[in-house]
Amino acid sequence: MTMPSRRDFANAIRALSMDAVQKANSGHPGAPMGMADIAEVLWNDFLRHNPTNPSWPDRDRFVLSNGHGSMLLYSLLHLSGYDVSIDDLKNFRQLHSKTPGHPELGYTPGVETTTGPLGQGISNAVGMALAERTLAAQFNRHDHTIVDHYTYAFLGDGCLMEGVSHETCSLAGTMGLGKLIAFYDANGISIDGEVRGWFTDNTVKRFDAYNWHVIARVDGHNPEAIRAAIEEARSVTNKPSLIICKTTIGYGSPNKQGQESCHGAPLGEEEIALTKKLLNWPHPAFEIPDDIRQGWDAQAKGAHMEQDWQQRYDTYRNAYPKLAEEFERRLRGELPAEWSEKSAAFIAEVNSKAENIASRKASQNSLNAFGPLLPEIIGGSADLAGSNLTLWEGSKDVNKDDHAGNYIYYGVREFGMTAIMNGIAVHGGFIPYGATFLMFSEYARNAIRMSALMKIRTINVFTHDSIGLGEDGPTHQPIEQTATLRMIPNMAVWRPCDAVESAVAWQAAIERQEGPSCLIFSRQALAHQKRNQQQLADIKRGAYILKEPNKAPKAIIIATGSEVEIAMEAASMLGRRRIPVRVVSMPSTSVFDAQDPAYQEHVLPAELSARVAVEAGVTPFWRQYVGLHGKVVGIDRFGESAPAQQLFEEFGLTAKHVVEAVKSLVK
Amino acid sequence: MTMPSRRDFANAIRALSMDAVQKANSGHPGAPMGMADIAEVLWNDFLRHNPTNPSWPDRDRFVLSNGHGSMLLYSLLHLSGYDVSIDDLKNFRQLHSKTPGHPELGYTPGVETTTGPLGQGISNAVGMALAERTLAAQFNRHDHTIVDHYTYAFLGDGCLMEGVSHETCSLAGTMGLGKLIAFYDANGISIDGEVRGWFTDNTVKRFDAYNWHVIARVDGHNPEAIRAAIEEARSVTNKPSLIICKTTIGYGSPNKQGQESCHGAPLGEEEIALTKKLLNWPHPAFEIPDDIRQGWDAQAKGAHMEQDWQQRYDTYRNAYPKLAEEFERRLRGELPAEWSEKSAAFIAEVNSKAENIASRKASQNSLNAFGPLLPEIIGGSADLAGSNLTLWEGSKDVNKDDHAGNYIYYGVREFGMTAIMNGIAVHGGFIPYGATFLMFSEYARNAIRMSALMKIRTINVFTHDSIGLGEDGPTHQPIEQTATLRMIPNMAVWRPCDAVESAVAWQAAIERQEGPSCLIFSRQALAHQKRNQQQLADIKRGAYILKEPNKAPKAIIIATGSEVEIAMEAASMLGRRRIPVRVVSMPSTSVFDAQDPAYQEHVLPAELSARVAVEAGVTPFWRQYVGLHGKVVGIDRFGESAPAQQLFEEFGLTAKHVVEAVKSLVK
Repeated sequence: MTMPSRRDFANAIRALSMDAVQKANSGHPGAPMGMADIAEVLWNDFLRHNPTNPSWPDRDRFVLSNGHGSMLLYSLLHLSGYDVSIDDLKNFRQLHSKTPGHPELGYTPGVETTTGPLGQGISNAVGMALAERTLAAQFNRHDHTIVDHYTYAFLGDGCLMEGVSHETCSLAGTMGLGKLIAFYDANGISIDGEVRGWFTDNTVKRFDAYNWHVIARVDGHNPEAIRAAIEEARSVTNKPSLIICKTTIGYGSPNKQGQESCHGAPLGEEEIALTKKLLNWPHPAFEIPDDIRQGWDAQAKGAHMEQDWQQRYDTYRNAYPKLAEEFERRLRGELPAEWSEKSAAFIAEVNSKAENIASRKASQNSLNAFGPLLPEIIGGSADLAGSNLTLWEGSKDVNKDDHAGNYIYYGVREFGMTAIMNGIAVHGGFIPYGATFLMFSEYARNAIRMSALMKIRTINVFTHDSIGLGEDGPTHQPIEQTATLRMIPNMAVWRPCDAVESAVAWQAAIERQEGPSCLIFSRQALAHQKRNQQQLADIKRGAYILKEPNKAPKAIIIATGSEVEIAMEAASMLGRRRIPVRVVSMPSTSVFDAQDPAYQEHVLPAELSARVAVEAGVTPFWRQYVGLHGKVVGIDRFGESAPAQQLFEEFGLTAKHVVEAVKSLVK
Repeated sequence: MTMPSRRDFANAIRALSMDAVQKANSGHPGAPMGMADIAEVLWNDFLRHNPTNPSWPDRDRFVLSNGHGSMLLYSLLHLSGYDVSIDDLKNFRQLHSKTPGHPELGYTPGVETTTGPLGQGISNAVGMALAERTLAAQFNRHDHTIVDHYTYAFLGDGCLMEGVSHETCSLAGTMGLGKLIAFYDANGISIDGEVRGWFTDNTVKRFDAYNWHVIARVDGHNPEAIRAAIEEARSVTNKPSLIICKTTIGYGSPNKQGQESCHGAPLGEEEIALTKKLLNWPHPAFEIPDDIRQGWDAQAKGAHMEQDWQQRYDTYRNAYPKLAEEFERRLRGELPAEWSEKSAAFIAEVNSKAENIASRKASQNSLNAFGPLLPEIIGGSADLAGSNLTLWEGSKDVNKDDHAGNYIYYGVREFGMTAIMNGIAVHGGFIPYGATFLMFSEYARNAIRMSALMKIRTINVFTHDSIGLGEDGPTHQPIEQTATLRMIPNMAVWRPCDAVESAVAWQAAIERQEGPSCLIFSRQALAHQKRNQQQLADIKRGAYILKEPNKAPKAIIIATGSEVEIAMEAASMLGRRRIPVRVVSMPSTSVFDAQDPAYQEHVLPAELSARVAVEAGVTPFWRQYVGLHGKVVGIDRFGESAPAQQLFEEFGLTAKHVVEAVKSLVK
């Protein structure tokens, strides 16, 4: 019996991937088979991780940006000793298994981020590398290096064609993220066939243009070449590295390798048999010989790595007990002890100040209040700092030369910003926020969704929230955007009506552990609304009675954001005509929907069916609150370019219209 | 009196831009002032256009991708003689003016596409250049060149940071679009300040990597250098050209040029006075001296250009009368004479065939039927041809070497594809369709919206429309996507339930002149539904009664797409329990919403308030049809990875659940 070769170790990945895809009768064998040799070298020779503790803070991060190749990752996790069994692999792509079709955060120990939507995994990796460097700068001390890990990412042609890869790789180069190492699976094949018909970039030049260190023409099936490339990449510490590996998709499959046919479908039993013969892998499906298994097992090695780190960390903790306490708090994602009291005090202060200001300005005021309490926040804007008002007094630029800041100038890169925020959030240690105009949330749409799917705490600040932005016109005026963001499962959307609600929205977003938030703010000034203590306390329930008439109300006006003012004015006008009307401010529909039925009934009693919703956006959304017979004062066409006040008139967003709507229901 | 210099001509743009922004007290003077010299050379020495006929088919196309600099374009249109008056300029950014904040297609003669959302204008330009080359290949004949124009685009740092610029410029290079010439306004400033903090790409290398011809370091304030660069760009016919112009933002403003402060706000009266002094422009606001005006006037020159073309076209028409007739039909955007009859015949044939097939397959069958009738269709997919089923029997690749085809391999570039389709559509002569998975409509979201805003006929084919795609899991399973697409104003969304509705959806999308459509198709097979002639005819009304019980119905089940089968099964089960139920198939909610009230009442009578909607997506959308007291059987959480049939069970999308829902309403 001979010692297993590196190729034998890699073939274990190939075999498991073929077998699992075949058993599921669904999946993607091509990429795992093509990248098996690269993965084998990286994982066995370089990756610092502990399979028995996937949450070791200083582990290297590994991201499979070409997430359809999930069996590559599941094979690696299984072989190296994570809690992913052969039975789990046999359940590939089955309901409630640990091995879904694409890697999903929270489903599988060792999966660092959810991937599949192309280009986003590498973008998450940029965020992780940025998080690592920033956390290191904030916590490492002379002779005490407690944060020091690499971020490795695999990606394919698809990731490189996607625009988001441009945004984030460009920024990674500008930032000089030396501990980000990406492996490009240059197999020349995408789903439509040989990429030369549609993808002819010179990727070396492209990444050189981004200020990356590029290692070109590495034989992705030659372990020594791969090893040398990784060593070279690690030696360059001021630039991210791209290792371009020439590979054969479906490597080993005599009739399908190098072709699209092995990308996204099982090879078939017959072809698997031929492939195993060619690869000299005589073992039955899902069987891994002991010597191969032992060679892969990283449990002992990983535990030793973590122990070593733990010793160093214990020394650090002794030297800097407060800093260590803070480090641990941040990794746990817990808020500081004084948060509750101080954030409540700020909200009370805003309430008593009673300022009439734009909610984007109120957002900045909130940042100025909350920022000093929260060293974990790391902000930014897609080149709209002065419009989004995302800089606060404690903002400090993170850049190539200064790593310890808390503000990222993302450039005009909305999608990239959001995907990077996702990477920062899954890394741990930070609460990222990022901003753009609400309209351009659309550029980032799928990354916003991914944050909700991953249940991570990111905070999207979207300003210029309606026709109220005025002259920039229909390309910039949100109509359907607030409603569509609310439709993303697990997304908390807030559209506050004044400075007080804005502060509460920020508080809620920061406190929300189980998912992201969108905070939607106005460009224009909004009137302060008076509230009693109960009303103030009820803002966080998503909707509450802002105005109750002296007599029993005959109708309810529901409004959000800038339209609450209009609703209040309409209610006053109706009051003067002896029509008692309740006004409900509903800054967050999803939060209100999650309240207990008694509270919902309290705010919107079933018997009070005369209801009018007012929002400067699409109207069908509001049928869920006003029913078929209520009225919605909103906008179902595109905006126009004009001064804001004229637009509210033009589109009928006026107290007069609201009054008419109510009167049509209570006559 | 001396002859005006080139600088004087350029200063006319600067003066008008400063004045209009000042008068509007809103807008962006920086880019117009920075790019004035470039624009002056391009428009006065090169651009082939006829201000008195903005729809001359063979005009050069000019796109301002940095659309916030709209006053540059409006100044050019005014000065060269388009129907844009000084009063129009004085009405900059005012309601219902010809001069909205950003250039809007249809508002202003001479505006070729709506720009403002960064990166999309240059992407539209790629589409225009592709359209020109394809139309030329299809219609030009030996010695008869009737299609032969350039596409020029201005763009800024923002456009180059946006990911979509990567997608479309990469594809433009692969396609070798030699008549696309882009001017990069390299002023080093974006909204957050000097771009070197967040944008350090070597753009020469980047575009070289894309196979563009790059002309670097052109002095954007030196007319001779600009002129030489344009001549060089035009001399390279097999690659698109990027002319990198070093400019000063806000050129001429002594205290604000070269700084962000002049980007997006009026300079102020005082600074304008200082600037005019520095520029030696002594004229009052909005006044252009006669000699300057005469030098700019392109009416006579333009009319002569068009006359020359018209003569050549007349010769062509004499030589190829049928081809000329077809050319004119295509430019008018009219369908062929036999369209109505033949498309109806195909639908009747599909109805009689009664096949149980996936609607994506039915879509391909529709393409095979309609494609031969429509040489104007130009299709494509974002690297999912075999999954989206967008190739039909007559599909022929458009590529660098063969220009006359009708199918574009877009690569994994959803946003780019959609923005290119928009460019093809506004160019004229084509009906573009493009495809991806429904989930990845999110990557293209804002370009989809732009097509609706521009009221152009593009057709988005979105397959794999629900959890019914199965094992690929939550990253790929649409939940909120269909509902959110429906919320875009002026968007026609179709989710057909079988092959017949699929064919009707295609027919409707092709016939729709006033806007785009989204056609949403299943991965999995769908049962054919039997219909009588009236039902068949009513599909195009967006919703219709698919099943009527023998007795008066006690409830209505509304369903779309794959859930119509479930609704029909539930209705049968309820019928057996003597609960008569109507089933309404609603493939297009927006089309149904546009029907006359009588038809709507016929399908959904107000008195029939026991209603259940069934769709494998977010439920609140359906409240507009079922009210507060109806039921919605849908999905409000993310999907899972598993075989499709298990998922329908897991998520409760079953006839049994629909039966229970109906019974809860009619008890």
